[in-house]
Amino acid sequence: MTRLRDLGVVPGYLPTGPHNAITDVPGVRVGHVTLISGEGRLTPGTGPVRTGVTAILPHDGNLYRQKVAAAAKTINGFGKATGFEQIRERGVIETPIILTNTLNVGRAADALVSYMLRDNPDIGITTGTVCPVVGECNDGFVNDIQGRHVHQEHVWQAIETACDGAVAEGNVGAGTGTQCFQFKGGIGTASRHVGAFTLGALVQSNYGLRRDLLVLGAPIGRHFLDKLLPQPGPGSIMMVLATDAPFDSRQLERLAARAAFGLARTGSFCQDGSGDFVIAFSTANPWPHDALPDDVQMVTRMAESGTVMDDFFLAVVEAIEEAILNSLVAAQTLTGRDGNTLFAIPHDQLVELLRRYRRL
Amino acid sequence: MTRLRDLGVVPGYLPTGPHNAITDVPGVRVGHVTLISGEGRLTPGTGPVRTGVTAILPHDGNLYRQKVAAAAKTINGFGKATGFEQIRERGVIETPIILTNTLNVGRAADALVSYMLRDNPDIGITTGTVCPVVGECNDGFVNDIQGRHVHQEHVWQAIETACDGAVAEGNVGAGTGTQCFQFKGGIGTASRHVGAFTLGALVQSNYGLRRDLLVLGAPIGRHFLDKLLPQPGPGSIMMVLATDAPFDSRQLERLAARAAFGLARTGSFCQDGSGDFVIAFSTANPWPHDALPDDVQMVTRMAESGTVMDDFFLAVVEAIEEAILNSLVAAQTLTGRDGNTLFAIPHDQLVELLRRYRRL
Amino acid sequence: MTRLRDLGVVPGYLPTGPHNAITDVPGVRVGHVTLISGEGRLTPGTGPVRTGVTAILPHDGNLYRQKVAAAAKTINGFGKATGFEQIRERGVIETPIILTNTLNVGRAADALVSYMLRDNPDIGITTGTVCPVVGECNDGFVNDIQGRHVHQEHVWQAIETACDGAVAEGNVGAGTGTQCFQFKGGIGTASRHVGAFTLGALVQSNYGLRRDLLVLGAPIGRHFLDKLLPQPGPGSIMMVLATDAPFDSRQLERLAARAAFGLARTGSFCQDGSGDFVIAFSTANPWPHDALPDDVQMVTRMAESGTVMDDFFLAVVEAIEEAILNSLVAAQTLTGRDGNTLFAIPHDQLVELLRRYRRL
Amino acid sequence: MTRLRDLGVVPGYLPTGPHNAITDVPGVRVGHVTLISGEGRLTPGTGPVRTGVTAILPHDGNLYRQKVAAAAKTINGFGKATGFEQIRERGVIETPIILTNTLNVGRAADALVSYMLRDNPDIGITTGTVCPVVGECNDGFVNDIQGRHVHQEHVWQAIETACDGAVAEGNVGAGTGTQCFQFKGGIGTASRHVGAFTLGALVQSNYGLRRDLLVLGAPIGRHFLDKLLPQPGPGSIMMVLATDAPFDSRQLERLAARAAFGLARTGSFCQDGSGDFVIAFSTANPWPHDALPDDVQMVTRMAESGTVMDDFFLAVVEAIEEAILNSLVAAQTLTGRDGNTLFAIPHDQLVELLRRYRRL
Repeated sequence: MTRLRDLGVVPGYLPTGPHNAITDVPGVRVGHVTLISGEGRLTPGTGPVRTGVTAILPHDGNLYRQKVAAAAKTINGFGKATGFEQIRERGVIETPIILTNTLNVGRAADALVSYMLRDNPDIGITTGTVCPVVGECNDGFVNDIQGRHVHQEHVWQAIETACDGAVAEGNVGAGTGTQCFQFKGGIGTASRHVGAFTLGALVQSNYGLRRDLLVLGAPIGRHFLDKLLPQPGPGSIMMVLATDAPFDSRQLERLAARAAFGLARTGSFCQDGSGDFVIAFSTANPWPHDALPDDVQMVTRMAESGTVMDDFFLAVVEAIEEAILNSLVAAQTLTGRDGNTLFAIPHDQLVELLRRYRRL
Repeated sequence: MTRLRDLGVVPGYLPTGPHNAITDVPGVRVGHVTLISGEGRLTPGTGPVRTGVTAILPHDGNLYRQKVAAAAKTINGFGKATGFEQIRERGVIETPIILTNTLNVGRAADALVSYMLRDNPDIGITTGTVCPVVGECNDGFVNDIQGRHVHQEHVWQAIETACDGAVAEGNVGAGTGTQCFQFKGGIGTASRHVGAFTLGALVQSNYGLRRDLLVLGAPIGRHFLDKLLPQPGPGSIMMVLATDAPFDSRQLERLAARAAFGLARTGSFCQDGSGDFVIAFSTANPWPHDALPDDVQMVTRMAESGTVMDDFFLAVVEAIEEAILNSLVAAQTLTGRDGNTLFAIPHDQLVELLRRYRRL
Repeated sequence: MTRLRDLGVVPGYLPTGPHNAITDVPGVRVGHVTLISGEGRLTPGTGPVRTGVTAILPHDGNLYRQKVAAAAKTINGFGKATGFEQIRERGVIETPIILTNTLNVGRAADALVSYMLRDNPDIGITTGTVCPVVGECNDGFVNDIQGRHVHQEHVWQAIETACDGAVAEGNVGAGTGTQCFQFKGGIGTASRHVGAFTLGALVQSNYGLRRDLLVLGAPIGRHFLDKLLPQPGPGSIMMVLATDAPFDSRQLERLAARAAFGLARTGSFCQDGSGDFVIAFSTANPWPHDALPDDVQMVTRMAESGTVMDDFFLAVVEAIEEAILNSLVAAQTLTGRDGNTLFAIPHDQLVELLRRYRRL
Repeated sequence: MTRLRDLGVVPGYLPTGPHNAITDVPGVRVGHVTLISGEGRLTPGTGPVRTGVTAILPHDGNLYRQKVAAAAKTINGFGKATGFEQIRERGVIETPIILTNTLNVGRAADALVSYMLRDNPDIGITTGTVCPVVGECNDGFVNDIQGRHVHQEHVWQAIETACDGAVAEGNVGAGTGTQCFQFKGGIGTASRHVGAFTLGALVQSNYGLRRDLLVLGAPIGRHFLDKLLPQPGPGSIMMVLATDAPFDSRQLERLAARAAFGLARTGSFCQDGSGDFVIAFSTANPWPHDALPDDVQMVTRMAESGTVMDDFFLAVVEAIEEAILNSLVAAQTLTGRDGNTLFAIPHDQLVELLRRYRRL
């Protein structure tokens, strides 16, 4: 797997974590299940299958019992992500975050409910219910999306195999069949250190017109227009931010708002049909599900004086930009239903162009 | 079935439509599927079952091709309703509205996707995807909610049997297992005429402490505290508003915001654990899915000068209040899992109390 | 000055603070300046004057240096309150809260800026700027509102004379010329104890149709329709909530959302032309303006598990309802420009009606 | 005055209007009043003065009587713009839009009220009140901002001298004392044709770190770091969008959301202290203030099917990017209080760098 920095390209100023991945935030784990089967002509409901599921786990305890502070930000709401109303009201996430394809959100949400019930058998009986958080992109250009091939077993497997350390990128998990500026895209991740804290990003890229692709500001996309076959229109992007800094949900929403600025650096103008969503969480100061003996807790809080917010905002922009470019660089050419093909961006030409534009 | 007006109770000033139901808005249809089976001790995943599904269809054409102007308003977001991001972004609904129980949202959304695919086989292949709209309440006090007993066949049946005219209320459809101020609640509906237009409401009631119940302002609930068995805490309420007046999505959101005032008239203080959501739509000026030869359409628009908004706001408040009280009055005592029982409010005592408080 | 409880009327269940006023929250102070001059025919720009200014001070330190956690909630945005964007972004208030009349907001904001500059001469020079928070109601039925008679000296005086203890209500300060259900209204306040904490409310009432007035749920207003002279239409209401419980801005926004439920209890259906706004703040855990040596602070946080939020939500609803009714009961008949008169609600008839409806 | 295109730099694909200015939208006019006086050491309240006011008039009729459809979008709410609550609620603007400096918002709003009263003497007497819309940036680095030197006469003059045709840019009006990436910035404008319609943008730039400045994606700013004197931190940006396409307020808000993507193209990461706001309006289908004989109007509506939104979204991004760069290129070196100097970006070096990065 090639990453952006393997090509010598370094976006931004801030230092990365050891894996340059969302998993650099202590406790955060990622799992993928990739579903590829069948070839040739689309038979709706049957295949070919080019899809998958990605799970992001904020910590390794019981998330329902120890919820993480969170925010959801909608940049463009043409999408079917679910769970946002409760994130906004209560400022927490209480399940793993699941990414999959658009039409599979219902099934993935249901599978996630099943998973939560297994570990919390009191849900709906002697305690409240549970709010599954699922995001999505449309991979229907290569995948039998009507078939909704991500089943409960796949969601559970993604959760249960989630691990820390390096994260697979490109055509994996929820990024198996997605595109990025009409190249093959998929999953990408990156991280930044901000003082003693870490900020990580993971994206499921599926948006953009090739004409518009920028890499470090250079107009790369327009040099590939002659090879542009009929391809999907703009899709969407799911962006997940994690940090161990003790931000509250309002502050996390401020961080999430900066994801748009990282997205814009790659050339997006946030198309009408794009569901562009951000989910941000902090692993610090979890919120207990069960009643406490005392309603008042002592917690840490990030000040908003000085430059602390700007340091994190820049980290968000850099990490989102790099995660997207990683999703692009790591992806490999994929042919799906009806022979529809998403081509990987050629690394050598990308490097050459970056040199020509003096960005390398 | 007894309705509030059968007891001689008339909330508000405005005239009702012929059925005093959301179906008084021309073209709007409602379908219920009620699932009751098993008795006795809860076996999670098996039963007893006390749940269901309710479908509201804004018009009888192809909703995906002719979307209705809509708004979603979150009064308290502790809930799992889905589809709101796209309603807010695009200002339309493109599917029937499905109500069911909390843990069943994923399955109902998936069933709704299947239904839409049946009639629009190009979804996800040669056109965009589809955004299912599903609301919910928690009926776990009497129902095996973990079992998620609402399946695709039930969702489809609710849609396909939807009809205009009188609407069944109380323990039906999505209201089968829900409660209202710790009495049995469920589905309720009402309507108001506003000039040449109609405003209809339908609720799935599942909230409130008995102590707080007000009927026409009279403190009815506190007279029934001696009979209060251990019962569920506060739940939620889903409120759907329909009109044939040509409001745009911003105006519909303003209407939706008034639902809170109708809700408050019954004594709610909008508890923490309550998912209180409003979905409002107009059947006028549908938005086409497919590209038009000309981007500019001629449509009608409601002015906001004069008293036109106030007339509709009052209609919302009255219709919501009456729909909730209808859900209460129409409901019948129901025993579910573990012998848990939700008692219907006794009509004779209700009438007597209203007389005592000079509200009759 | 007569208050609601002086008539024997007790709304709600929860205990009040010692003054049943927003000033029961330790550190909170209130100051009024009442401007009454001239009589007879309106000469725009000259008089008669029936207006004023009310200042609410969250604590007695330097608010710019020690900002209070805050939220702003718009129930109906037909109003000219200012400062909300920054409250939402940063979750704090950094000035006293000023209430005045609608057309005077600009002058009051400017006066508030001047006041802040006096105590913080570095503003705009070596540190950032300052965000004045000003709310308003339209008192033009009795007041020469075009004249904008609230000047800098009045704003400063309201701030500098602010004190704790009992709060004047009715025709005082920003409530001098306002109405409530087409009776004379004005300033009202109330408080509730919630465990070891206090929740206080202060309102500037100026809304409602007489027909709709409810007192403890009883339809009081409709008994006074024969005496209804041509009067102003619906106006607005400003509602301020204070607490010493350590809520963050998201939680404060949740509290603020419940103000609508207290407002609804009085009969409002939130008319189109009404600017209904809520500002909520907590005196706990102030946010420092200046950079800290360490970005991480230890603070207290209110859990949201158990019933703690419901306890506060009920306190908000009760305090807002009682504050509004106090504004009504404390107000006295006032004649203003062009002989326009706002009549006080007759206490004896109010009591008699409450007895008739068995609410006393 | 030099504009970006005078240097041979052409951002984007879409054609401009005849003046490449917001005034290309028929009926839209712009007026500036520039206030420059005094030199040397700051005497707060006295000078030196380096500030001004800019007025944007959506049409040349009575705006109060014929309001324009509008939206307000907050990208980062650390600012003191006023009037947004009512824009959001009612979806209209009813006054000219005034831009000035941060501490002058109150005075400018008051002056705008006075202006509206002059032409609508019934305001506050026999009809409702009026909602002034004012935006701001902090020009305190060069200006005696505490002095609030923009008075009523200046606001009125900006309105009354507003005209169509070419628009002065750089150090004029509200941009007199503002900066852009620590160069001199100020007012900039641009426009795009989209089919038969026009989309125009006007900005008051006052944000950014020099290090981050991008021009057409090239990292221009970092080449000027050696000449960077101690200068102001990040400020804000006000962005105004106008169009004659018949968008409703929801659609206008969607357009406004894309301004962030144009802003990002210049290198902004939307700093904590930046008040980044967008006001968008359409001159089509004005909303009448006074009650109509019939509540239903026939109006035009832009479809959202096909690519129409994307065409406009791209226009927004391009026009905002170009307007910002115009504000930078047109600005001239300015020395203000305490000798503080904002240097204009050197055109020759800018062009040379763009050539080096192959952007020219």
